[in-house]
Amino acid sequence: MKSEFLRILLNLGFEQQKAEKCAGIFTLNSLEGVYSHGVNRFPRFVKNVKEGIIKPDAVPTLTHRAGSLEQWNGNLGPGPLNASFATERVMELAQENGIGLLALADTNHWMRGGTYGWQAARKGFVFIGWTNTCPNMPAWGAKDPKLGNNPFVFAIPYKNEAIVLDFAMSLFSYGKMETYKNEGKRLPYPGGFNRQNELTSVPEEILISWRPLPIGYWKGASLSLMLDILAAALSGGLSTHQIKSCISESSISQVFMAIHLKSLHNFPSIENSIDLIINDLRKSKPESETSVIRFPGENVVKIRNENLKDGIPVNREIWDKILSL
Amino acid sequence: MKSEFLRILLNLGFEQQKAEKCAGIFTLNSLEGVYSHGVNRFPRFVKNVKEGIIKPDAVPTLTHRAGSLEQWNGNLGPGPLNASFATERVMELAQENGIGLLALADTNHWMRGGTYGWQAARKGFVFIGWTNTCPNMPAWGAKDPKLGNNPFVFAIPYKNEAIVLDFAMSLFSYGKMETYKNEGKRLPYPGGFNRQNELTSVPEEILISWRPLPIGYWKGASLSLMLDILAAALSGGLSTHQIKSCISESSISQVFMAIHLKSLHNFPSIENSIDLIINDLRKSKPESETSVIRFPGENVVKIRNENLKDGIPVNREIWDKILSL
Repeated sequence: MKSEFLRILLNLGFEQQKAEKCAGIFTLNSLEGVYSHGVNRFPRFVKNVKEGIIKPDAVPTLTHRAGSLEQWNGNLGPGPLNASFATERVMELAQENGIGLLALADTNHWMRGGTYGWQAARKGFVFIGWTNTCPNMPAWGAKDPKLGNNPFVFAIPYKNEAIVLDFAMSLFSYGKMETYKNEGKRLPYPGGFNRQNELTSVPEEILISWRPLPIGYWKGASLSLMLDILAAALSGGLSTHQIKSCISESSISQVFMAIHLKSLHNFPSIENSIDLIINDLRKSKPESETSVIRFPGENVVKIRNENLKDGIPVNREIWDKILSL
Repeated sequence: MKSEFLRILLNLGFEQQKAEKCAGIFTLNSLEGVYSHGVNRFPRFVKNVKEGIIKPDAVPTLTHRAGSLEQWNGNLGPGPLNASFATERVMELAQENGIGLLALADTNHWMRGGTYGWQAARKGFVFIGWTNTCPNMPAWGAKDPKLGNNPFVFAIPYKNEAIVLDFAMSLFSYGKMETYKNEGKRLPYPGGFNRQNELTSVPEEILISWRPLPIGYWKGASLSLMLDILAAALSGGLSTHQIKSCISESSISQVFMAIHLKSLHNFPSIENSIDLIINDLRKSKPESETSVIRFPGENVVKIRNENLKDGIPVNREIWDKILSL
């Protein structure tokens, strides 16, 4: 998979090193089960590069530094490369100062946010980051999309792996709703409102209404607004309402924070402390015999190991398309 | 109200300045409409002081500093005083370094988290903070409470006021469910599971089952876990599973972050940028004629102004109890 991605990116004019990095991220996202932001999304990424929306040569440039805080411009470079760079850089800031924050304006879609959480956590850093998106979710009490579903990522190192939470502000992402629709299934819980202002579990109805349900209703809608204001204010970049197109979803704003755990006085006991928390969680009384109590990211390791053994499953049609690129 | 609180705190042995500060916070929380963590909670605060759970004389002590990051111990002092101190201190760190993080171990309940968001935002700082709590919410798929509802606070300065989001990880707080119960009402949405593992809108059933619904179901449960791990790891203090009693809820862990907006290159344009976001939000198409589109914290200003004009409404029984203390 990686060599196919690499071939295509080199053909698009990516420099060798950037092509390898970018192919690596798309492959990793697929390997770890997030096909919607890995192999399945690759053709759209290629299309955006061809359209000039994503600039293969562009690299982030420093706009301003204030102590542990930096503002960068992504110059519309490839989102995964910009985000990966920002993650490395914010770890340097955190290494110097205990904590660092980097805000990135004018970047492109980072694909799977969790990737950057894993990147930082596996090097011993806590990661907190988020991105804004195009308007794809209404304010609470409203019918038209004014908010983004703004994925929010938390990651913590844990036993050479990590605990990683990567979640959008809508209960189900558009990608997930598409999957349920394609499988002819209903959502397991009402996931949005239909055009009659009723809660519905039918994915088609929500894909038409553009009214996905925010997590925690008014709470998720409010959190989405806060993340967007912060992303725009801290980076000096665009806010959701200025990101006009959900097709290109370009020139977005992102925030990356890292905390250097080794700089804490209790660093030697942190792993044990997390272990106690996870062990306590596992002692939960399951609701039913089929209930599984997991910590965020636990399933990623499982899927990664399965896919490393059996290969990454692909949709035949999408893979054929990629081979033809 | 403040003078009654002050009288009682002085009788409990609070020093003048601390008594005034603490009475001020309880009064402010009530003035701004959060009665559950203001006047209504004051008798329990007094009880906890008398029981020795809250130590009136204790002040936070610095455990460790690493650049922009500090670890403090709250020494079981009054939660609102410790939190208010931590907020002031983290603003100093942010003023020096652009961003600061302060983690606080062994503190007590901070009452209303939004108070510290307002405190920082009205001085020009972005505030992000959270607290862990006793176990009061199950993991997703589980029946017994292992997670906390861990309130999470975001605040951003806005036009001499602020945009402040203060939300717990459960859709409805226990305080809110008690209110619905006392008014003989159902919750507006299913707010938890009953003992038969069914979603229910009857507050009594959730108050018995201890199974409030996490915001966004599995997402809120996961976020709660992340906030608890971070609070415990960053402070070196206790995690939710170690906070045995939900009655005293003592020796909890908190995280305070501040960002100094004035240190950003785009500081002069931030207010205008936020204005554009809020104006766009207000242009939302309301779902019905009764729908109101608000930003988080907007209602706080409205209630504050009403209560400043008309006085703070109190529950007669609670107020009589306070007068008798």
